[in-house]
Amino acid sequence: MEYKLKAFCISALLILLQVNEIFAESGYELWLRYHLIEDVALKRYYQIKNSSIVFTARTQKQLVAKTELYNGLKGLLGFTIQETHDVKDNCLLVGNVESSPLITSLLCAKELDSLGDEGYIIRSLQIEQKKVTVVVAKKDQGLLYAIFHYLKLIQTHQSLDGVSVKEVPKIKYRVLNHWDNLDGTIERGYAGYSLWDWERLPFYRSQRCVDYARANASIGINGTVLNNVNANAKSLRTEWLIKAAGLADSFRPYGIRVFLTARFSAPQEIGNLDTSDPMDPKVKQWWRNKVTEIYEYIPDFGGFLIKANSEGQPGPQDYGRTHAEGANMIAEALQPYGGILFWRAFVYKNERHVDRVVTGYNEFKPLDGQFKENVFLQTKNGPIDFQPREPFHPLFGKMPNTALSLEFQITQENLGHAGHLVYLAPLFEETLQSDVYGDGKGNTVSKILQNYHETCGMSAIAGVSNVGTDLNWTGYLFGQANWHAFGRLAWNPDLTSEKVSEEWVRMTFSNREDVIDSIKRMMLISREAAVNYMMPLGLNHIMNFHTHNGPEPWHDDPLWTAYDYHQVTKDSIGVDRTDKGSRATGQYHKLVGAYFENLKTCPDRYLLWFHRLPWEYKMKSGQTLWNELVNHYYKGVEEVRTMQSIWTSLKDVIDGERFTSTENLLQNQEREAVWWRDACLLFFKEYSQMPIPEVYESPRYSLDYYKKIPFPYDWNKTQMFK
Amino acid sequence: MEYKLKAFCISALLILLQVNEIFAESGYELWLRYHLIEDVALKRYYQIKNSSIVFTARTQKQLVAKTELYNGLKGLLGFTIQETHDVKDNCLLVGNVESSPLITSLLCAKELDSLGDEGYIIRSLQIEQKKVTVVVAKKDQGLLYAIFHYLKLIQTHQSLDGVSVKEVPKIKYRVLNHWDNLDGTIERGYAGYSLWDWERLPFYRSQRCVDYARANASIGINGTVLNNVNANAKSLRTEWLIKAAGLADSFRPYGIRVFLTARFSAPQEIGNLDTSDPMDPKVKQWWRNKVTEIYEYIPDFGGFLIKANSEGQPGPQDYGRTHAEGANMIAEALQPYGGILFWRAFVYKNERHVDRVVTGYNEFKPLDGQFKENVFLQTKNGPIDFQPREPFHPLFGKMPNTALSLEFQITQENLGHAGHLVYLAPLFEETLQSDVYGDGKGNTVSKILQNYHETCGMSAIAGVSNVGTDLNWTGYLFGQANWHAFGRLAWNPDLTSEKVSEEWVRMTFSNREDVIDSIKRMMLISREAAVNYMMPLGLNHIMNFHTHNGPEPWHDDPLWTAYDYHQVTKDSIGVDRTDKGSRATGQYHKLVGAYFENLKTCPDRYLLWFHRLPWEYKMKSGQTLWNELVNHYYKGVEEVRTMQSIWTSLKDVIDGERFTSTENLLQNQEREAVWWRDACLLFFKEYSQMPIPEVYESPRYSLDYYKKIPFPYDWNKTQMFK
Repeated sequence: MEYKLKAFCISALLILLQVNEIFAESGYELWLRYHLIEDVALKRYYQIKNSSIVFTARTQKQLVAKTELYNGLKGLLGFTIQETHDVKDNCLLVGNVESSPLITSLLCAKELDSLGDEGYIIRSLQIEQKKVTVVVAKKDQGLLYAIFHYLKLIQTHQSLDGVSVKEVPKIKYRVLNHWDNLDGTIERGYAGYSLWDWERLPFYRSQRCVDYARANASIGINGTVLNNVNANAKSLRTEWLIKAAGLADSFRPYGIRVFLTARFSAPQEIGNLDTSDPMDPKVKQWWRNKVTEIYEYIPDFGGFLIKANSEGQPGPQDYGRTHAEGANMIAEALQPYGGILFWRAFVYKNERHVDRVVTGYNEFKPLDGQFKENVFLQTKNGPIDFQPREPFHPLFGKMPNTALSLEFQITQENLGHAGHLVYLAPLFEETLQSDVYGDGKGNTVSKILQNYHETCGMSAIAGVSNVGTDLNWTGYLFGQANWHAFGRLAWNPDLTSEKVSEEWVRMTFSNREDVIDSIKRMMLISREAAVNYMMPLGLNHIMNFHTHNGPEPWHDDPLWTAYDYHQVTKDSIGVDRTDKGSRATGQYHKLVGAYFENLKTCPDRYLLWFHRLPWEYKMKSGQTLWNELVNHYYKGVEEVRTMQSIWTSLKDVIDGERFTSTENLLQNQEREAVWWRDACLLFFKEYSQMPIPEVYESPRYSLDYYKKIPFPYDWNKTQMFK
Repeated sequence: MEYKLKAFCISALLILLQVNEIFAESGYELWLRYHLIEDVALKRYYQIKNSSIVFTARTQKQLVAKTELYNGLKGLLGFTIQETHDVKDNCLLVGNVESSPLITSLLCAKELDSLGDEGYIIRSLQIEQKKVTVVVAKKDQGLLYAIFHYLKLIQTHQSLDGVSVKEVPKIKYRVLNHWDNLDGTIERGYAGYSLWDWERLPFYRSQRCVDYARANASIGINGTVLNNVNANAKSLRTEWLIKAAGLADSFRPYGIRVFLTARFSAPQEIGNLDTSDPMDPKVKQWWRNKVTEIYEYIPDFGGFLIKANSEGQPGPQDYGRTHAEGANMIAEALQPYGGILFWRAFVYKNERHVDRVVTGYNEFKPLDGQFKENVFLQTKNGPIDFQPREPFHPLFGKMPNTALSLEFQITQENLGHAGHLVYLAPLFEETLQSDVYGDGKGNTVSKILQNYHETCGMSAIAGVSNVGTDLNWTGYLFGQANWHAFGRLAWNPDLTSEKVSEEWVRMTFSNREDVIDSIKRMMLISREAAVNYMMPLGLNHIMNFHTHNGPEPWHDDPLWTAYDYHQVTKDSIGVDRTDKGSRATGQYHKLVGAYFENLKTCPDRYLLWFHRLPWEYKMKSGQTLWNELVNHYYKGVEEVRTMQSIWTSLKDVIDGERFTSTENLLQNQEREAVWWRDACLLFFKEYSQMPIPEVYESPRYSLDYYKKIPFPYDWNKTQMFK
């Protein structure tokens, strides 16, 4: 108890320090911080490079782009750029095919055409001895993206001399999935509550929603699913559609299309039908009518996201129909309007002793080619459920005739909620760069997603949002980096997490090289740290049953047991998913499967995912499995401590509020990393009967103590501290 | 439908305009806007008057005060005040008895002593030909209040020459009541969700909670009840107490004490007892133990607020005990620690044909003198339930031997939620300045509250908070004015709403006289406007049954009927509460009762509250009751339109974000005011069978249409727009 009280006092003191900067940053601005450039020479350079501008804006999107540009330049350079109609030296020329034939005439028609709806070019040109920068797109949406990119060049202190940027998104649908309930709560949300003010919609338009759209547009996100995949049928009622239309109106100028989730049983629940059977003509008609109605209110409605026959949700199987039959019936209703259906592939049987890892593939693989062309099968990155680390989902590469949407989770359901600094770009990158060996080596998940020539030009990446009403949007400051990284990788899934993190640090904190290096280092070790102190060596699903935060490898009830996932005994640990076990390896391309199957090639990081091994098993490092496991858990905690010391070294260069809140967060993370490490090792030690080597610090508390800690939000079961 | 679509388009356009100011204000800063003074001469004047400072800060509160002062001056004057140890010309001397014997020696001991814990003095003095400003208090808390006052003088452009301020609060407990549930939702909250981040407490301390405490301290609020009066027993569990302690730690430096609600049946629900009978020794012991535990975690815990035997809540009457017996049992447990119990007087029988207006008085009047000395009986301002207008509660002045706490509602449950601009200071003032005629004329509710010589030095005002996670704290900008006004009137209940509004406008918007006049005018007509378009002439409780927003005078179900409240028939309207009726008039002092009883003296504003009158009744104005009623409803709408045109005239002087959001709000308010007016008049017209005079615009829609509009949040019942 004394320890806790001391922590209280220290925190109270920190609070004091926090108020000592009036212009302390809450984080609300996100990465769109247009603060005056302090370096006088650099500011002067950019001022010269922006001496004047030609930018005729007429449409709503053009006006939005222009406003963003003017605001950005005013903030960064402290002046209002001068408008002109003639091309002058150091002039900025901004336009697209519709707004300025003059500007677009500076590029060849073929190049312009290759930009599509969303691409753009930023290029230094010389016109009659005048140096100019051309910011050009084919369409309005591309122009808005171009403006954000142009501002980013200045924000991140890039040279504008000889600048040559051409960007076209590699993925068509880049969509946030909000698991927001109609009552404002968010399933697995840790940053407050829903941004959608349903009570006051559609009449009240909040600036917060506009800023949400700005932020998304700045990283290329172009769609948003407003509500929870565990859907409420009433979200499709007229009254709610009108409210959703209010949000769509706020988002439209930024190119964000609204999608809704739909409950498969809606025809019964709100349509007064006696069935929701997808083969019933009345049901088909109901969906057609409903879709028609939606497009009346939201002319650019994106489509539906549906979770069916999964975790208790209704679906076509309730009527003996397949997923494809269910999906196609609704997709048909959407097709005349250009609407898209995302159909989730996340299904598993809630039965003991059935390996959940293999069920999604087994259920959907036979349906390849049966989905209509406007259906995405939306597949989570791995075959279980957003664990700290999973091998890629075997459906990638095995559904050549189906458009797949990759679903990442940005909200940290299983990665410490908003209490742990975990940068997810390395996780995203790991999945995207996984080689599925479709047509030989180098056929990554990323390539599979991009290869939509065979899927009617359809490609998609979805991210379960971590955004809420918290002042800093994401519950903790670095959560913003995960939102940012998702957007950037959805735009270009071949970007590296290193590059994306640098961009974010420059925009969010500083362009000082030492600061960038330090913060990047923290970020780039953070995900591996979390894997190490939570679930190393391929372990998974040993988190707290209710909250999914904190360790609970001992959970064991008739519905669900952690023992299915680690299968620990006195002899061994891990799940045999090889040919001799549940045959998960066989679901991959034969080369990939063999790679996982073979103990010599299977990477340590997936070892206990695919293999069941004795405690004395000799690892590649030469150590026993037990010792290796111990090493990983201890290493994870040490990595958090490294993050702490890096952050402490930045005290003088980060404003008080952001510094203190992150310092506070890392303290919490260290405490919880120790909790994870101790609880898991003490639990497994009961089986292995092997010691924690003496070089390591002793566990802080006993296993019994750790078993009694409820996750701090879930106070119903036991009492802490007493 | 076209009308709505047009409104959508206009709104969409407005959104565009909204982004055109990068430094647009979200409202997050509240009235604590320390922006640089633009008037150069004035800024220079204040810079000179703050040439140097003597301020030795050692305690946590002193440090907080000093930080606030330095931040404020840095923002307002653009410089950091220079510290010194000698008294110089134009020096600021800040201290209290503990921090600076030197500074306090400048005042006579008796005067200092009269300041108590929370009072302060700001005074120009001359010391050896040096002009100085002394900011002095007896205790730390007074010093913090003094600093906020000093900054306010500069913010509101007051002269510091010859300044002489002495302030001592007139009420001891100035408490916000949050109706926040443990799941983060807020009962009758319209500004988002709870500020308390229960998941991450106690380890995570949010800057938002610190800013909440700053804001409260700046207006003199010194207590906060964290949770809903419809209490959840588990809030008293150890785990939740530890979390509450985390909040208390954040609030303590600002002098905000934490209170909790307590569910009367907690001994059974979380204590494993088989009864909660207040006379049971086990129950008494349980509460003693629980209170002891709370003070372990929160040494300055304020006490409990309890709603018992009211609207289904458990209470002492479940065991045949009186309210006093129930309250005293818990108060006894609190007494050793200086804790206070607020026991709510809001009770009524949920029975038809029992006049709810008379029940609270009848139940509590006989208990006068039976409550322990650390119990407040907390009484709403009027005898029903936070209606737009009610006469003062008859318990005021009739409980001479009981400490009364006056409960106002700041959140606009019955005043348009966060969708109507309604400034509540005039409502607060109306109640506070109501004359109860205790010991002759001039014995106002305010005086009753202040007259705590007979109640062991206890005095209290409580306000049901309108604060939530919205960026602007209160759902709409002017909601901040109601929070501000509550604090100011709790500190000094004899302030005028005119004075309080001016202070708020100066701090929030501008010191320009024309701007102040315009905004004050809007604010000061707004409450009467709301009464006029909602429930004029003493009408009450005809709002929507579920949401309490929008009109529903036709509501009539077995549990509850609006007909009990208006009793409309073809002949008459209003409720007879005179001697011939439910005798509510008899609950007041005989002079007050006679004043309400007599039609010649009863003010029009309470007419239908106390009297049942025929439609043809001739009003003081010479018009019939029907025509007068019509006039009021139309006047209400016109007043909203006046507010709109005043606001429009301010377009050039208010920043884009705040201007547009308020413009948007007023549009909504106009639409809903028409809804109220039309729906009520068309409904009453069915009975009166009298016409709406032709000089007035026709109702926009039919009664049938209005009856089908659900409140926009409550979409379950009927469908709008179709």
